[in-house]
Amino acid sequence: MIVTLLTDFGLSDVYVGVMKGVIARINPQIQTIDLTHNISPQDIAAARFHLMNAYPYFPEGTVHVAVVDPGVGSQRRSIAVQLKSGYVVAPDNGLVSGILPEAIAAVELNNSHYWRSQTPSATFHGRDIFAPVGAHLANGVPLQTLGTEIDLGSIVRLLIPDVIETETELRGVIQAIDHFGNLITNISGEKVRAAFGTRERDRAWNIRVNQAIYAGKKTYADAAIGEIIGLIGSHGWIELAMNRGNAQSFLKLKVGDAIAVI
Amino acid sequence: MIVTLLTDFGLSDVYVGVMKGVIARINPQIQTIDLTHNISPQDIAAARFHLMNAYPYFPEGTVHVAVVDPGVGSQRRSIAVQLKSGYVVAPDNGLVSGILPEAIAAVELNNSHYWRSQTPSATFHGRDIFAPVGAHLANGVPLQTLGTEIDLGSIVRLLIPDVIETETELRGVIQAIDHFGNLITNISGEKVRAAFGTRERDRAWNIRVNQAIYAGKKTYADAAIGEIIGLIGSHGWIELAMNRGNAQSFLKLKVGDAIAVI
Amino acid sequence: MIVTLLTDFGLSDVYVGVMKGVIARINPQIQTIDLTHNISPQDIAAARFHLMNAYPYFPEGTVHVAVVDPGVGSQRRSIAVQLKSGYVVAPDNGLVSGILPEAIAAVELNNSHYWRSQTPSATFHGRDIFAPVGAHLANGVPLQTLGTEIDLGSIVRLLIPDVIETETELRGVIQAIDHFGNLITNISGEKVRAAFGTRERDRAWNIRVNQAIYAGKKTYADAAIGEIIGLIGSHGWIELAMNRGNAQSFLKLKVGDAIAVI
Repeated sequence: MIVTLLTDFGLSDVYVGVMKGVIARINPQIQTIDLTHNISPQDIAAARFHLMNAYPYFPEGTVHVAVVDPGVGSQRRSIAVQLKSGYVVAPDNGLVSGILPEAIAAVELNNSHYWRSQTPSATFHGRDIFAPVGAHLANGVPLQTLGTEIDLGSIVRLLIPDVIETETELRGVIQAIDHFGNLITNISGEKVRAAFGTRERDRAWNIRVNQAIYAGKKTYADAAIGEIIGLIGSHGWIELAMNRGNAQSFLKLKVGDAIAVI
Repeated sequence: MIVTLLTDFGLSDVYVGVMKGVIARINPQIQTIDLTHNISPQDIAAARFHLMNAYPYFPEGTVHVAVVDPGVGSQRRSIAVQLKSGYVVAPDNGLVSGILPEAIAAVELNNSHYWRSQTPSATFHGRDIFAPVGAHLANGVPLQTLGTEIDLGSIVRLLIPDVIETETELRGVIQAIDHFGNLITNISGEKVRAAFGTRERDRAWNIRVNQAIYAGKKTYADAAIGEIIGLIGSHGWIELAMNRGNAQSFLKLKVGDAIAVI
Repeated sequence: MIVTLLTDFGLSDVYVGVMKGVIARINPQIQTIDLTHNISPQDIAAARFHLMNAYPYFPEGTVHVAVVDPGVGSQRRSIAVQLKSGYVVAPDNGLVSGILPEAIAAVELNNSHYWRSQTPSATFHGRDIFAPVGAHLANGVPLQTLGTEIDLGSIVRLLIPDVIETETELRGVIQAIDHFGNLITNISGEKVRAAFGTRERDRAWNIRVNQAIYAGKKTYADAAIGEIIGLIGSHGWIELAMNRGNAQSFLKLKVGDAIAVI
């Protein structure tokens, strides 16, 4: 039984440790795995991105507890969603929208029997609702027991810019910047393969950002040291990277900036 | 069997990993949970605060190994304390004083049989004494076997500023600032409830800091975006917070600064 | 069964969590322990240093998966090495050279049956090769099954500056700077004991750096508060430290700077 945790709580306070204590109290056999706790405070879009990328690599039945929750204490719903291969427990604020194509069923978490206490705090539902519900799910409590079933269509979706396809290019945006300074776009490798056909097999696509053009390559090592290139990153997105360097330190882009695959 | 770890070792070196290796050598079945390793170097007061806040959420029998230890290698004692619900193993420098009301018995760790080696290093008792002793405690070794029993009254207490109650206000200080920029005071929610009686039920208390007054609310979402409010935080302390923002970036306070609940 | 992880992936992305998911898919009973993920991007020398220091503290049979891999996707080999007490799985780029004296046998990882997929990504072998191979090793798959046996002498060694012994001094360099600002040299405590003989027993050795001289002591607490001293650190290396302070903030040295024990 695995419960993963993804939050914006950082690692300087004991908030994450406390969630693990709450889970261990319900069942010390549950293994907790950190996805990341360094989401920028209240950045639901980043949490959505990371959860979506991590989900495919976990065993069947894994429960993902994801808490980036600026609306805690308001009327926003708390939900649990059954996926094709596991579960996610989270506030209903768009965080789960990246994996909704995998969703099978969902409930609103209104059965307080599975909370840490009947009167949860107004500010820390990670501890009082999401972690304990995640632990009970991992323990085998059926989804429908945790609350009232809701329509999948009613779950909040985060609006992500669409990729625009023209005759000659795919226009997208930077959707994340990783620890290495790789600039990850919202354009999938699959889209590039489809659009450029044989050209992609020859790796003859390029990225245009501002006025500059960077060649698409297969991996860092195909570039000279310090060269900026495009590639299909390990999660399947087109990204800009620098061989043995940090593309972001050089290009100084930000999430939302426009790029095109040409 | 759970052993938690709380240190100022950071996550850039292998010090924490090495402590986990030492524990796994004694019993690989022990589950280790990180409380935090980002205590500011040698900040015993912060470690005391975090340990006290995390302790209530862990299962019966959990062993908390806490190592913020500027006096390592000096004559300061190493101790293990039995609590109502678990144990703490730490240097005797004030770190455990926040949970002393929970203490039942304590020993000085002078039985080197339970150390990693008879000749511990002079600088890393986390690895050589605290982690192995914590693992043996989790394994069921009785407290009294680990060393000589000591009087609970002899354990070093850290002096924390008292909360001063006047006819009209509760005067305290900022005792911690969390990852979100919430400014956590040393005034408990219980004290505010007791002092303000029915006013608290109406949430009619305020926080005064420097010349400004901020209204007490139940949760972030009761405030406008960007508004600074007082609230009873999830660990039970009165805190200053900003809805969807960082109160500390705006107020620029520091630990020890005076505030009052009025 | 323990698998440790050491990478330069940081903790802001889900790369580390994904590796743990891949391991849990192979066997959820495997316990993963983080050594550190905060190696500076692509700093093989730092990874080599930390792996070498952590290795001795883990149980027999532990598998260390270490991924600092600037050459991912190039022709550099992926290897697994059997050590006297465990295994290491890593790119063959010098990362393992600090523990090669412990090596018994090694293979090149060219049996894709034990990879996550027959077609690994060109940029994330941590997920696609090293983590799954590490999990299979922990599961008991024999080393020789994972690929073609290679000569230990063929494994890439990282050139580390030698310590130079003169009649009167040992000359070395700073090889690492830890979280506390301790400046860790490449001179072992054993070398100092051998060179200074009875003088070391009297602690009568000093460190010279630039024009200044600092006395060798047994532990921080033997120095005045704020005093800079030399000592034999917990991993056995001579280091410069400040009692209750940060030597690096004061001395402003960097990795590679010369020091001498005199």
